[in-house]
Amino acid sequence: MSAHTDRPSAVTVVGLGPMGRALAAAFLAAGVSTTVWNRTPGRDAELVAAGARAAGSAEEAVAASPLTVVCVVNYDASDAVLRQESVTAALKGRTLVNLSADTPGRARDTAEWAARHGVRYLDGAIMTPAPTIGTDDAVFLHSGPAELYEEHRPVLAALGGTHTHLGEDPGRAAAYDIALLDIFWTAMAGYVHALAVARAEGVTGAELAPFAQGIAAILPPLFTEFAADTDAGTYSGELNPITSAVSTMAHVVHAAEAHGIDASLMRVIEGQARRVVARGHGSDGYTRVADVIAGR
Amino acid sequence: MSAHTDRPSAVTVVGLGPMGRALAAAFLAAGVSTTVWNRTPGRDAELVAAGARAAGSAEEAVAASPLTVVCVVNYDASDAVLRQESVTAALKGRTLVNLSADTPGRARDTAEWAARHGVRYLDGAIMTPAPTIGTDDAVFLHSGPAELYEEHRPVLAALGGTHTHLGEDPGRAAAYDIALLDIFWTAMAGYVHALAVARAEGVTGAELAPFAQGIAAILPPLFTEFAADTDAGTYSGELNPITSAVSTMAHVVHAAEAHGIDASLMRVIEGQARRVVARGHGSDGYTRVADVIAGR
Repeated sequence: MSAHTDRPSAVTVVGLGPMGRALAAAFLAAGVSTTVWNRTPGRDAELVAAGARAAGSAEEAVAASPLTVVCVVNYDASDAVLRQESVTAALKGRTLVNLSADTPGRARDTAEWAARHGVRYLDGAIMTPAPTIGTDDAVFLHSGPAELYEEHRPVLAALGGTHTHLGEDPGRAAAYDIALLDIFWTAMAGYVHALAVARAEGVTGAELAPFAQGIAAILPPLFTEFAADTDAGTYSGELNPITSAVSTMAHVVHAAEAHGIDASLMRVIEGQARRVVARGHGSDGYTRVADVIAGR
Repeated sequence: MSAHTDRPSAVTVVGLGPMGRALAAAFLAAGVSTTVWNRTPGRDAELVAAGARAAGSAEEAVAASPLTVVCVVNYDASDAVLRQESVTAALKGRTLVNLSADTPGRARDTAEWAARHGVRYLDGAIMTPAPTIGTDDAVFLHSGPAELYEEHRPVLAALGGTHTHLGEDPGRAAAYDIALLDIFWTAMAGYVHALAVARAEGVTGAELAPFAQGIAAILPPLFTEFAADTDAGTYSGELNPITSAVSTMAHVVHAAEAHGIDASLMRVIEGQARRVVARGHGSDGYTRVADVIAGR
């Protein structure tokens, strides 16, 4: 074993897209001995100038450190690197942390593959954009064996921000990631649609934005209330029955389509709510939709 | 003319659902002489006990005050009351403020009807739930003639909260209302979907909610940035090209459908983003979707 593998503060970063480069730069800035590798060459110049060691191959890269952090576009891409026989063999007895984004199923499948090949495995998800890495604003989620997480926590702390271990199920970080991306992109889609409708009505984005921020401000307490509703299976619609929600959803559809703007998103939302009403739950709160879309 | 019509601080409230009752209660609490009427009888007992005058008909109701505030389920419902010949005649020379929710088109149509019949007309929208009325948390939007708004502002101030006059176009309050409901319901739909996916993954709502609140916290600056993008028609995807968004959207679809959860909402969102990529704008930011859905 090389001197590197004896030191906990040595890491290999596989994948040098914007996020991978940010991870490697944060490790280097924290004084961690860092080896880097990317499938497509030419992405490591700045990192090497900052003190990183450039590996000549994926096998050499993972052999250089006791801990490899991989961050590529998805698990097809990480499989293509890691499941090569020579790379898998070099990973044996070492720790792999996969921070690439994908589904909980792919994370669990990777954990099974790692177990079959004697690779110590943690799965993770990065919830904030590349510029946050190394700062207090970064948010990392981890899942897998707790003692393995504790062992590598000091090195991972070099990435800055908040690290949360969510449990032993290796799919758990990806499950949170998926749920949060679901919320994020749906909210963004609604906002961009609202900008399009506002523009058609002669209202600029600059005029709408402060009021949109008012909507963002009322979400957190509703998130808590809706979570309690779904956890308890009680869908109180006392103050806001879903029947009245349906009526305002229809207004959005009509106003958008009157301008020739695609309203298929709100048509789906309205349709889900109408299915709740059709099932006899019209006096329930909106959260009842969680059951209908899950076929419960 | 009765004594009531000479005093600016007299108002009639038509429509006594939860919101209409809250409006009438706030007027009464502020010492405004208040007349109430509802199509279905029996909703006025508490208000009469608090000092309201119960009108025997819609015509009598609107004749009782210089200002009538109507708040019913939509403009079909307000038309059914106000466009009766006797009621329209009684409204002549008086001011009507329609706080019912509907589309900008219906608001403009009502303003035209009002002008034809000598009714002074303001349109408005209430952005916050009934319990906020009379408190600092209430948010009201108004549109229509500025001097008419200024004339009735002192009485409307009895409703509490923030009142904003958005312009002379009578459809403007409804346009903001529609855009904000669009954002609100789409965000709620994304959250309820995320709760369903999380539940299928063994993650409770209580576990997810604090992270969901983290997502809500990053929305306000993005709302400002996206608004500037659409206003300027510059869709910079330098940090977050839409191609990488598409990949995470697909993960949400796959993770949901692996549990038999309807992912049609995210399928629409992913489809809109893929149309941007297919048109050669893959390196643009997500906001470019605003053009694609508007057929631009």
